[in-house]
Amino acid sequence: VKGFVTLVGAGPGDPDLLTVKAVGALAEADLVLYDALVDPAILGLAPRARRFFVGKRRGRHAMPQEAIHQWLVRAARAGERVVRLKAGDPFVFGRGGEEVLALEAAGVAHEVIPGISSAIAGPGAIGVPVTHRGVSSGFLVLSAVPDEGWRSVLPALSKAKLTVVVLMGLDRREVITSTLIGAGWSGEHPTAIVAGAHTARAFGWIGALHALAGVAVPADLPGLLVLGEVVRLGRANVVSLLDEAAIGIGGAA
Amino acid sequence: VKGFVTLVGAGPGDPDLLTVKAVGALAEADLVLYDALVDPAILGLAPRARRFFVGKRRGRHAMPQEAIHQWLVRAARAGERVVRLKAGDPFVFGRGGEEVLALEAAGVAHEVIPGISSAIAGPGAIGVPVTHRGVSSGFLVLSAVPDEGWRSVLPALSKAKLTVVVLMGLDRREVITSTLIGAGWSGEHPTAIVAGAHTARAFGWIGALHALAGVAVPADLPGLLVLGEVVRLGRANVVSLLDEAAIGIGGAA
Repeated sequence: VKGFVTLVGAGPGDPDLLTVKAVGALAEADLVLYDALVDPAILGLAPRARRFFVGKRRGRHAMPQEAIHQWLVRAARAGERVVRLKAGDPFVFGRGGEEVLALEAAGVAHEVIPGISSAIAGPGAIGVPVTHRGVSSGFLVLSAVPDEGWRSVLPALSKAKLTVVVLMGLDRREVITSTLIGAGWSGEHPTAIVAGAHTARAFGWIGALHALAGVAVPADLPGLLVLGEVVRLGRANVVSLLDEAAIGIGGAA
Repeated sequence: VKGFVTLVGAGPGDPDLLTVKAVGALAEADLVLYDALVDPAILGLAPRARRFFVGKRRGRHAMPQEAIHQWLVRAARAGERVVRLKAGDPFVFGRGGEEVLALEAAGVAHEVIPGISSAIAGPGAIGVPVTHRGVSSGFLVLSAVPDEGWRSVLPALSKAKLTVVVLMGLDRREVITSTLIGAGWSGEHPTAIVAGAHTARAFGWIGALHALAGVAVPADLPGLLVLGEVVRLGRANVVSLLDEAAIGIGGAA
């Protein structure tokens, strides 16, 4: 048996949002190394595999990236079919690029199966399209840690007809809000929170930027922020509560 | 029977990159309205359905958007299970938002099933991650028509550690190149072309921005442009031809 590593995007949560190809890779896996945010029902699609959690959890250290690389290489060299399972898409803040480089350096055969990214499907879960004719002609996806790249484009973005999606930003709403307002954004900029999209606990809020940090979001739900006029297109039951208290929304859109 | 419309993202081309949920919706469909770029093998997943092409083709007029809305509404009201099948994701330049608004206005039950967007999976097909630690902390997705939103952010983006993906940009490489260079971008900015990603005819090129417009890309392949340091992480067999002639790459990544 020839060992092989497949990096698999698990999508936003709902097992039915895995690709057919991802389901096939899981079914044949001998070993699955998975991150946080991967639904137990998705792990159940790999019944033959030994399964190990290697990601970050609140308040605990993650396995060092280098150790993950070594595990992937060692298992593949031992002839195992390895799935490296990541929430969303492996190449969107998933360190998939680093793992691919490590596998290439070690000469291990590998493949990347893309996944549904919550950067697009998260807003979609509350009816918010990241692009919309006349409203948004593009979208920018950022991580929740405002760095140099972040700060350098924000002033120009304050009035552009572009959507900004901030992944994993729920814990950092205060610094994000102050960074944006410091870069010239209006406190009235239309803003949305989407948490637990495409899971049974989906939560959405639409309001003004200045109110963002004060919204009570259910604890432990991973989520993202959406900024731009497109959020006004969100589900009527969310939009009608504009600037009011956060509300839960139904399941997957 | 109660009529229902499902907007389905068909992903980048490979039928195995449809989601499980999309396959289920196609299997049960009575009617499928599809756009260009949808692979015939994907249409074959809807054997019960009448299937109609309503998208744009080179040199032909597409069906007016309003007529598509009326068809969706009429069929759902007649009790049909309708799939509106779109390349990639319905909310990424797919006019999915407009169709959802039309369905909501008509009171027609509907759902959106996200798809793998070529904005992420296209670069991934030649081993280019849209984000990479220390190289790119986010990515901007634009359509190929430089508008006000486009132009306003380009100067700030010229040096930011962010990736720019331009969808469907192959025909407009000259104006895109001159727009970027006019906004202060270096002619040496690392650039990639990905065409027909995740199909048997996949094509990739990596080089410098100034050479972009001169690359001979196989006719009729839909494709995209990637701009940013991440393209240097692309497949070794592509990277080694930096600034040389375009080459074909293997099938799906």
